[in-house]
Amino acid sequence: MDQQKLVVIGGDAVGMSAASRTKRRRPDMEIEVFEMGEYVSYGACGMPYYISGQVRELEDLVVLTPRDFEEKRGIRVQMGHRVEEIRPEQRKVLVKEIATGRVREADYDKLLIATGAEPVVPPGLDVSLPGVFTLRGLPDAGRIKDYIGRRKIDAGVIVGAGYIGLEMAEGLSRAGLKLTLLVRSKVMSSLEEEVAQIVVKELEREGVKLEVGASVAETAAGEGGRIEIRLTGGRVLHAPLVLVGTGVRPRSELAGRAGLTLGVKGAIKVDRRQRTSRPEIFAAGDCAEAYHRLLGRNAYLPLALTANRQGRVVGDNIAGIEREFPGILGTAVFKVFDLTVARTGLGLAEAREAGLDVVKVVVDSASRAGYYPGGEPIKTVVVAERGTKKAWGVQMAGRDGVAHRINTWAAAISAGLSLEEIKDLDLAYTPPYSPVWDPVLQAADVASKHSAQG
Amino acid sequence: MDQQKLVVIGGDAVGMSAASRTKRRRPDMEIEVFEMGEYVSYGACGMPYYISGQVRELEDLVVLTPRDFEEKRGIRVQMGHRVEEIRPEQRKVLVKEIATGRVREADYDKLLIATGAEPVVPPGLDVSLPGVFTLRGLPDAGRIKDYIGRRKIDAGVIVGAGYIGLEMAEGLSRAGLKLTLLVRSKVMSSLEEEVAQIVVKELEREGVKLEVGASVAETAAGEGGRIEIRLTGGRVLHAPLVLVGTGVRPRSELAGRAGLTLGVKGAIKVDRRQRTSRPEIFAAGDCAEAYHRLLGRNAYLPLALTANRQGRVVGDNIAGIEREFPGILGTAVFKVFDLTVARTGLGLAEAREAGLDVVKVVVDSASRAGYYPGGEPIKTVVVAERGTKKAWGVQMAGRDGVAHRINTWAAAISAGLSLEEIKDLDLAYTPPYSPVWDPVLQAADVASKHSAQG
Repeated sequence: MDQQKLVVIGGDAVGMSAASRTKRRRPDMEIEVFEMGEYVSYGACGMPYYISGQVRELEDLVVLTPRDFEEKRGIRVQMGHRVEEIRPEQRKVLVKEIATGRVREADYDKLLIATGAEPVVPPGLDVSLPGVFTLRGLPDAGRIKDYIGRRKIDAGVIVGAGYIGLEMAEGLSRAGLKLTLLVRSKVMSSLEEEVAQIVVKELEREGVKLEVGASVAETAAGEGGRIEIRLTGGRVLHAPLVLVGTGVRPRSELAGRAGLTLGVKGAIKVDRRQRTSRPEIFAAGDCAEAYHRLLGRNAYLPLALTANRQGRVVGDNIAGIEREFPGILGTAVFKVFDLTVARTGLGLAEAREAGLDVVKVVVDSASRAGYYPGGEPIKTVVVAERGTKKAWGVQMAGRDGVAHRINTWAAAISAGLSLEEIKDLDLAYTPPYSPVWDPVLQAADVASKHSAQG
Repeated sequence: MDQQKLVVIGGDAVGMSAASRTKRRRPDMEIEVFEMGEYVSYGACGMPYYISGQVRELEDLVVLTPRDFEEKRGIRVQMGHRVEEIRPEQRKVLVKEIATGRVREADYDKLLIATGAEPVVPPGLDVSLPGVFTLRGLPDAGRIKDYIGRRKIDAGVIVGAGYIGLEMAEGLSRAGLKLTLLVRSKVMSSLEEEVAQIVVKELEREGVKLEVGASVAETAAGEGGRIEIRLTGGRVLHAPLVLVGTGVRPRSELAGRAGLTLGVKGAIKVDRRQRTSRPEIFAAGDCAEAYHRLLGRNAYLPLALTANRQGRVVGDNIAGIEREFPGILGTAVFKVFDLTVARTGLGLAEAREAGLDVVKVVVDSASRAGYYPGGEPIKTVVVAERGTKKAWGVQMAGRDGVAHRINTWAAAISAGLSLEEIKDLDLAYTPPYSPVWDPVLQAADVASKHSAQG
């Protein structure tokens, strides 16, 4: 039998994790990764902390270099190579070396599409203007930081209040910028109102000016290197820096052109083994759908752990070990200034759309024993099913002890525990870290009562 | 029907929580609580932090006063009353008012014994000497703090390295004492060696002198208000303060004299509804056994949350709602200086005693993304069953992000998830709080591999 070959399009976490897993299980397999950018295998989630100055060097975000993969793992990595076309019938990709413009063919037996996501840029926002930035990869982070430093930027406008917008609000604020945050409808629209309001307060407390209900109609180069931002209402803002953080969409155009089926929100449709509509072509990470355990169907929620998990599933399946992606639960956490916001499972609207008879229960607790210094309030919102007393989703916000507590909920919901069972969990207690009844237990107790039949 | 009466012996958390729960469910019931001390319903776990100065006033540890219970909850609380005898046949208790010496009878229909635990004082340690202290209740904490302040104590010896010994090492050290810790065999004997070693290092780093293998043969009043501590080896130490922290035992003597069956480690034997060998008499908290979910039998592990949970179960059952105590998992956490140590489930020896074919897997991870400042190593020890790949116990130690992570394990183990399922949990990730693969996932992954059949 000829040597089998895996081609990977995209050298982000998911591509490299799949390549590594495949090689470990099938050292005989030839693997070639095409990455159009300058980096592979980096911590994209760390970019706001590079901009803030908490991470010193851009290179600190790089986990492994192309050379590491070549020398230590036997994986060929072609940097600066963009795959222009997939030819599924011939099992070939057309690859362009960006520097030379040279195009060549590469054969594959298995193909992984790991092209990631790209920023959604609302019409009216001209990202070609100097000072207008999106944040997709390390070079963007480098450019932003460099621009701020060289021009001594002290103010900025962030468009969009999703994860990126909020994390960058902290990052740019720490970098010394006075910020205005433009929000089309609400801050973090995936959050329940009670939790989103806490985020709003945190932003205000930190001096970030919120403009809710604002959409950008037009941007233009203004005076003194500033950008002129005309809002749909007619008002004009001026700022030396604009960051577009209005969400991302899957980079699935290449897959679409190759005739592969696209699914939720335009992401590449995959089965539980991450196979696309052609079984020899896999897709994973931010360009692909992810199976949602609670919805029992695919969703699109691009997150780093999901990408890494899917990468391993791809590696296993390519290596001949049939394994399904166990699915996501919708767990996520972010930090904005001193506040931590976390969620798992479904929101109220999401649960109702899924046909569940749910109520929303809001519980206030303290993060530590009342007498122990440093405690902070924690707000927990539980989406609980009437009758079954099952928790379908939880959101939490607070300044202390939120990030890991959501994982207790994630484990409990994943295991199908009822709120009755969750309130009876034997959790750890010591005054510096929780009240006797941990906020998880308190919220489960209250939600259990409020979701009784009737 | 006559009004039913509940008598509660002991006004600690468990007694008051049972009384409150009963009254809420059965407002018609008469409830009388006899407490021999000066306080009810206080946070005993906060005492080390009062001594350290982090909690200002002793009263800050009091959750509710006797008057609160009387006025707000309709529960009669008799302070300074010691129950001398239980007469089960007559459903009476003999109570002495300590101040007057007056003894009276009190009838009951239901009785709750919530007498708690008492310090074990090794022979040779004379606790009547000025400067030698145990730590059972708030008055002890008050006396210790007062003694240190009045005599300007700057050094001390702690006998015993269990929870109390270690938490008091931090507390007394913060209060300015130079400490020696006498350890009979090992620090925190319930911990696996790999974790206990981290505790030892933390103590050394903080300047606490450890004397391992040291037992006290005799104590006597020495010169200048110092206590002379003669060790079994013959060596003599001198210190102005000695704290005895050699563990606790159940205060079950009253129950034993009344003919109630005692069980594990002399604790009052109870069924899953917290009933003693006489169904109208309940026992809960540190004087009683606790059902262990993993062992499937009763154990003795006196902890605050267990007491509170059992208190509610007692209240429900007395009020006529049959409910079983769901059981403990052996979850606990403590903080010693900057280190957090947490555990849930069984230790290796415990699991083997229970007949399980288990291996111990030790995994080192980081608490945050590598590039994010403030990350610390976390050591996780998993006790994993061969073949089934089930986690039976987990211990963790580290300076960042340990306390709540153990609860993810507790939820997962409680729900019966296998290590395969735990490693596939969709946990929350953001660089300030975890690496992409959380230490929980990393440990589950490694332990899963190491517990495969063979």
